This record gives sequence, structure tokens and C-alpha cells, in this order.
Amino acid sequence: MAASNIFEKKIYYHDTDCGNVVYYANYLKYLEEARSDFFEKKGVILADINTRGIWFVVARIEMNYIVPAQYGNTLRITTEIEKIKSASMLFTHTIKRASTILNESKAVLVCIGDDFKPRVIPDDIRTAFTA
Amino acid sequence: MAASNIFEKKIYYHDTDCGNVVYYANYLKYLEEARSDFFEKKGVILADINTRGIWFVVARIEMNYIVPAQYGNTLRITTEIEKIKSASMLFTHTIKRASTILNESKAVLVCIGDDFKPRVIPDDIRTAFTA
Amino acid sequence: MAASNIFEKKIYYHDTDCGNVVYYANYLKYLEEARSDFFEKKGVILADINTRGIWFVVARIEMNYIVPAQYGNTLRITTEIEKIKSASMLFTHTIKRASTILNESKAVLVCIGDDFKPRVIPDDIRTAFTA
Amino acid sequence: MAASNIFEKKIYYHDTDCGNVVYYANYLKYLEEARSDFFEKKGVILADINTRGIWFVVARIEMNYIVPAQYGNTLRITTEIEKIKSASMLFTHTIKRASTILNESKAVLVCIGDDFKPRVIPDDIRTAFTA
Repeated sequence: MAASNIFEKKIYYHDTDCGNVVYYANYLKYLEEARSDFFEKKGVILADINTRGIWFVVARIEMNYIVPAQYGNTLRITTEIEKIKSASMLFTHTIKRASTILNESKAVLVCIGDDFKPRVIPDDIRTAFTA
Repeated sequence: MAASNIFEKKIYYHDTDCGNVVYYANYLKYLEEARSDFFEKKGVILADINTRGIWFVVARIEMNYIVPAQYGNTLRITTEIEKIKSASMLFTHTIKRASTILNESKAVLVCIGDDFKPRVIPDDIRTAFTA
Repeated sequence: MAASNIFEKKIYYHDTDCGNVVYYANYLKYLEEARSDFFEKKGVILADINTRGIWFVVARIEMNYIVPAQYGNTLRITTEIEKIKSASMLFTHTIKRASTILNESKAVLVCIGDDFKPRVIPDDIRTAFTA
Repeated sequence: MAASNIFEKKIYYHDTDCGNVVYYANYLKYLEEARSDFFEKKGVILADINTRGIWFVVARIEMNYIVPAQYGNTLRITTEIEKIKSASMLFTHTIKRASTILNESKAVLVCIGDDFKPRVIPDDIRTAFTA
């Protein structure tokens, strides 16, 4: 069973570009916010684990831009954990506006230490998502 | 034979985050700059073709984050066109710092009209990249 | 009596820089969000008035950076309208983290038309803030 | 006699918003780039002085938005040092597109240590700008 989370995101001017849609890089910011919210709801505060020398960094992203979001929209981002491996997690994200799917993506996050090297995900964090 | 281009990009504070590396979404901005530079060197000015109702929008991105860039770095972005189809182009990008590969990605761009619908890439633009 | 509004803003990685604080330009984004929220609570939806050819653009900003915000903070932004003139509005903003004042600013917004020229603020918008 | 510098900046999609102009916060990024370039031309590499525990942070900004920049523009940013005090520097910036002044601003930068407290600007840095 996959853990999942829903996060709401409102779109402002600073999110858009002169093509009249949300700029394509900005969706990655929303995914950061959505994952952060997910971690937090599971009791994992990223600011706290950073002080323990634990970081989650994105190693790979795949994103399909289906329908563009626009100024004033409120988006719903569904985040699911597809897999937790020894030192990495695979997330899938779906961004919707009402019932329309705007954007689908996958992100691989790797757990690293202060030395930037991969390390095993600590048990308390793993348990937070699998319990 | 694939057309290709090299673009230099300098990293400032606004590119980085408190993890002490370039924020992961920002690489997509650099790719926009690199592709825009490529088009321009081929004589295709995006601002001009927009007034003709021609837009190139990103439909898909795949990005591998290999080594993080940091404040003060100068990056070299190599952009190649792997394929030009009827209404889309496939780009590959490699971002290097000196001889180190930091980031590899593929981007699918679709040619759309003012109505947001795909349209055939005009001949003058196609020829600019294939001649 | 000045109309006022309070807006909460959470800080993510994408808001920070490698100096370990919020990047100085980003506060201006939060002020956009805070003003937009204020307008909305007064029943003025910016996306709607844009379609009537009415835009509010920033003509001047003064900002004092007192204490830096950091990753994981939740900020409270108080926005007050100090003055509404014929074609412009003067806002003051205070950004706090708990009881600590982080940032104080003033922004002059001018009402313009689709031709980018100043125009008188429509009565329904003026009334929304003064009634 | 004030030291001064000129920096060129090209505008891309990611700089603009759906109002079809450069988003107002982004000018502050260009000023960071312009000041960084200025420092570098004077032989002061910010990445290097950061490792000595010396940071220049913006304490105050005043910006007048006169004419908006747009997609595809190339801007010229003139930066002048108006005053160097014991622990701070006052910069003035003018942003032009060809002969049109788009934006005028003043920025106060304070020299701080790793403890975030103001410190006297080291002599080698002061001399770089006054010699």
C-alpha cells in the first residue's frame, strides 16, 4: 500500500511567464512543497533531519506537461510513494485543476549525508512512511 | 548529423539554495536559455515567431542530477537536436563544469499555435536546423 | 482607518540561497501574494479585473531587511493600505516570524490600463477598500 | 570619483510574467549579478571572501519601476558606488534598454561575519574600490 498526500497550491503572477501560463520550471518548486508537506504530515521535519546530517536530494525527474496551469488557478498535487529502497525513494506526483490532469511526474530522491554521499535512510524516517 | 550548440552560464546566489547547491528547478531555466541561444544562432528569434502565432512549449522533460553545481561556478551547456518530427523537436542537454558532467537531460518541445494546439513546424524553422 | 490584512507564508528550499537565508528578491514575491490575498478578501479578484483591462503594477518599492528568514520558517505578513489616491495605492508591509520583525516595506501600486497608462481606480475597487 | 561598472543582461521567458513584462522581483536578481560582476572586475571574488567569513548582505533597497522590460530585451545595468562607510556600501543602479531608463534603484549592503553581525570592511576590499 502506497502512502499518499494531497497538497493545494495557488498560482500567482510570479509563477507565470509571458506565454500566459505557469513557467515550466516552477512545477518542480511545487513538488518540493508537496513532498515537504507530505514528510511533515508523517512527522518528518526536513529542517530537523538536516541538522542530523540527513538530506534528501532529487537524483532524477521525469515530467509530462499535459495542460498548462494559469494565473489564479488553485492546483491539487497528489504525491505517492511508489517505492522505498535502501537509500532512495520513488515519488509519483499528479497535478490537477479541478478534475483536469495538468501534469504527471516521477521523482527519485536519494538520501545523502553532509558529505553528499548516499546513505541508508534512517529507520525512523522509513517507518514514518511504511507504518 | 545532429545540430548542436554550447552555452555558458554563470551561477549566482539566486541560483542556489540553503543546501549549498544550485536549486534543482533552476537547471530548467538554464536549458531554456541554452535552447533560446541555439535558436538565435540559427536565426530563429523566439520573440519574432511568437508574433507569428508560433510557440515552442516543453511537453516532457527527463533530467538526471549527477553532481550539483555551486555558487560561483561557470557551466557549459551542450544542446543537441536528436530529432525533428512534424510538430515536435527532441533536445538533449549536457551540463558540465570543466570536464565533470553535472546534469543530463532530454526535452521534448512541441510547436503550438495561439490556440495552444500542436501545429506543423514551419519550413523556415525546420530548415534552420537541418540545412 | 486603514484597511489591513494578515497572510501566512511558509519558507521552502526554493526560497533560500547558499547564505542559508531567504534570498532578498523573494520577499517581493511574498508581498505580491499578500496583496493578492488582501484584494481577494475584499472581493477584488485580480484575474477578473485584468479581463476588464485593469492592472495594478508596482511603481516603487522601499524595503528594509532587518532579520533574515530561514528555511522552515512560517512568516506572517501584515499589509496595510496607507493611502488610496486617484490612480495609485500606497501599501505598507511588515513581515514577522513570531514576534520578531524581519522586514518592513512600502510599495506604491499604480492602476494602469491595457495601454500601460495610468487610469483612475474604478469605484467598485476603491469602495472595496474604503467601505 | 565614484567607481562604476556596466553589466549586460538578457531577458528570457523565466524572467517575465503573464502581464507580458519582467516580474518586478526579478530586477533584484539582476542587481545581484551586476554587483557580483563589479566586485569580480575589481578582483573581489565573493565566493572567496565568503570562505574568509565575510558576507555582503542587502540591508535596504529602494527601486523605482519606470518602464517595464520585456521578453527578448537586452538590458544594460550601470552600477555605481556612491559611498563606502566603515561596514557598509551604498550602490546606485540604473537599468536601461538602449537609451530608455527602465529602472532606478539604491541598495545598501552591509558587511557581516559568519555570526550575521556587522563587521568593518576589510582593507583589501575597500582598497579595490577606492584605489
